[in-house]
Amino acid sequence: MAKEIIIIGSGGAGMTAASSARKTDHSAKITVLTEDTDIAYSPCVIPWAIEGKVAWEAAVMHTSEYYSKEKNIAVLTRTKVDSVDDSAKTVTAGGKAYRYDSLVIATGGRTFVPPIRGADLEGTFVMRTLRDGRNIQSYAKGVGKIAVCGAGVIGLEIALALSHLGKEVTVIEMFDQIMPRIADKDIADHVQGYLERRGIKFVLGAPVQSVNGTGKVSGVTAGDKEYPCGMVVFATGVRANIDIPKQMGLDIGQLGAVIVSPSLQPYKKGRLVPGIYVAGDVMQCESAVMPVPMMSQLGSSAVKQGGVAGKNAAGGKALFGPVASPWVSVLDDKEVAGTGLSQGLASSYGVDTVCGKASGLTRARYYPDAKEITVKVLADATSHRIIGAQIIAGECSTGRINWLTAAIVSGVTAEDFLVRAENAYCPPTSMVKDVVISAVEDLCANLRVQ
Amino acid sequence: MAKEIIIIGSGGAGMTAASSARKTDHSAKITVLTEDTDIAYSPCVIPWAIEGKVAWEAAVMHTSEYYSKEKNIAVLTRTKVDSVDDSAKTVTAGGKAYRYDSLVIATGGRTFVPPIRGADLEGTFVMRTLRDGRNIQSYAKGVGKIAVCGAGVIGLEIALALSHLGKEVTVIEMFDQIMPRIADKDIADHVQGYLERRGIKFVLGAPVQSVNGTGKVSGVTAGDKEYPCGMVVFATGVRANIDIPKQMGLDIGQLGAVIVSPSLQPYKKGRLVPGIYVAGDVMQCESAVMPVPMMSQLGSSAVKQGGVAGKNAAGGKALFGPVASPWVSVLDDKEVAGTGLSQGLASSYGVDTVCGKASGLTRARYYPDAKEITVKVLADATSHRIIGAQIIAGECSTGRINWLTAAIVSGVTAEDFLVRAENAYCPPTSMVKDVVISAVEDLCANLRVQ
Repeated sequence: MAKEIIIIGSGGAGMTAASSARKTDHSAKITVLTEDTDIAYSPCVIPWAIEGKVAWEAAVMHTSEYYSKEKNIAVLTRTKVDSVDDSAKTVTAGGKAYRYDSLVIATGGRTFVPPIRGADLEGTFVMRTLRDGRNIQSYAKGVGKIAVCGAGVIGLEIALALSHLGKEVTVIEMFDQIMPRIADKDIADHVQGYLERRGIKFVLGAPVQSVNGTGKVSGVTAGDKEYPCGMVVFATGVRANIDIPKQMGLDIGQLGAVIVSPSLQPYKKGRLVPGIYVAGDVMQCESAVMPVPMMSQLGSSAVKQGGVAGKNAAGGKALFGPVASPWVSVLDDKEVAGTGLSQGLASSYGVDTVCGKASGLTRARYYPDAKEITVKVLADATSHRIIGAQIIAGECSTGRINWLTAAIVSGVTAEDFLVRAENAYCPPTSMVKDVVISAVEDLCANLRVQ
Repeated sequence: MAKEIIIIGSGGAGMTAASSARKTDHSAKITVLTEDTDIAYSPCVIPWAIEGKVAWEAAVMHTSEYYSKEKNIAVLTRTKVDSVDDSAKTVTAGGKAYRYDSLVIATGGRTFVPPIRGADLEGTFVMRTLRDGRNIQSYAKGVGKIAVCGAGVIGLEIALALSHLGKEVTVIEMFDQIMPRIADKDIADHVQGYLERRGIKFVLGAPVQSVNGTGKVSGVTAGDKEYPCGMVVFATGVRANIDIPKQMGLDIGQLGAVIVSPSLQPYKKGRLVPGIYVAGDVMQCESAVMPVPMMSQLGSSAVKQGGVAGKNAAGGKALFGPVASPWVSVLDDKEVAGTGLSQGLASSYGVDTVCGKASGLTRARYYPDAKEITVKVLADATSHRIIGAQIIAGECSTGRINWLTAAIVSGVTAEDFLVRAENAYCPPTSMVKDVVISAVEDLCANLRVQ
């Protein structure tokens, strides 16, 4: 009899799990249950869709009809799961029970909105779904000043998109730098300066205290000062959506997300739960650089986890390794990217770091259109292992940060990286010695003199 | 007393060795002896300088005066070294003896020209020095049809540059594919088709038999057929320039280059020679994927080796690891890149390979200006270790090939790569799952079914 596989959630993790399960088992009955109406879209597109660079429709990869017809996967939208009974192996949604042999939980996350007065006024928005994005675009038409709360990369991208629409945008951040936790202050300050020159204002070290207005937003108070605005967008982080895992009694970690094994199975009181897999923003990861859990709430992570969970759910064998969580953001003609730990995050774990930094160009000095690039690399001062890196570049930062990520997840020391690292060279694509290698050279010099 | 360091050769390896020695020892007396007149230039620029995209002057990084003034390094040009006496620790050049404490041999390579009739006719050229490049540019003005012998990346780049000048260019290659040894036939055929559509003709499987003409070139005979042309450029490979090493009695390997230790010291009858270091095209490397020697005659390799040799010569400590020799070439709006072994080269060593391949885009599907990218990855069928990769892409292939190179030199298996690989994602810079990872997924699937 065909295996029955149920997937809860239709984001990047859920839909990839469904496709991955289908690839592994051609005859299984695969059903996706989701409370959403849009499925299989790219939420990362929202800033570019808001400013009109990409059409909203283009962001939707596939429809339910596509999954049904092309992959024989049933996607039941507007179907909220109420509970899972893992002894009876049933999922209940809208009063109906669905039996499963394997279950993938990919319930994603929710934007965290600080519990402050006025956070639900008309004119306040979060940015998670395409619908959120369309609502922001539409409401912004009637507004001149906008406050974006949260200076993570999503906050910065949305701020820039809104400023491209001619809005006066102020980014409010409770930490004293932008991109807190993921970027070092020198890198963050550089990016901030770049965005300020493009007209975005920043208020740092100022927790948002209230959204003000009668009926609709007229301002935001942060750090005891009011900033008048007609609209507020919260980009204040994502929390795992653990309603179902909690109802099931699955073990939840200190970061408020589901604890999983390398095959992405959850635990119940420390014991693996058979037949159940977890993927996406709802799960916690193992860090590649420290024996601590971490969240990796990125589209790329969700897709990778979905692939592993779906394959295992269908009877295949795949593992999800510890993560460095590389990320990249494009802010007009600057790319900023990072991987592993920042100095601040390392220091919050009591880890001493030594850093190396180099600046240069993305092409040979003499080649037309060469862009500036700065690479910063961090090592653990004791083990000399590379534990983090950040890049600001005019182009092609992604491959470079993935390269450094490969070194981080392999536990390579700075010195060993230098002995083995090689870079392909052609005048239009890099300097003869890539800036990544120069940064590690600087790191090794600093490790020697420490 | 200040240490005396002598460097023979002023290419990428020699000049980097000089700078690296200076960085390591601020008081050493450093002298570069070179028979060349131009020093410290980028030979890789030649194709772009020929077509006028980059000025010849721009390719020269630094002059002798710069080295003398800024780095206290004496560069003696037009100074051909006649012999080295490693017991007396002296170098003799132009009748004068120079004493050394440490010596770096960076005598580079020479373009190999097949020993055929007419190879020295007026209108035949090699492409090694800036002077060669200028001569090609100048002679091409009076010529309509040009034959380029050798379809390696240098041959392809020069062919494209000359075709941009309006010349009718035919590339002649004795193997039955372009980029033999470094690229697989499917990748090579793809690139060949692209170049043919841009007007370049190819004659494959045809060894050049003679250059014809009275006084000057009027044609080339290859594969028993004559191709009329007014000019011939030989891009038929580089041989190590081992005149000095041979005179010294240093051990020469089966590839005709100097055998070196990981600290880049040469051997004499199997024993390390103290105080002497070797860098650049004159040395052979250790392969990162097989226990065999290989040549890595790339600008990036020369610079890396020069850095290691110069540092060690000055009393520092650095190692040069086994190489995968990543390379990249830009042919108009296509980049082609590779690393490690090709299928053909692996097979010539008796190694069975399994390959994986994926095509996609360099940006999210819906993001403007996304370029096509194809990634091919090879594994050893027995160990499953990744041993080679090739990329054709519209942009940003370099970071990706360096990423795969890091995996190759670390000895990672395809399966382990997949467990650990992560990619940074943003719609303008990659797909949510980078094509590199999709290619390794395909590789793993093929390894399972073999």
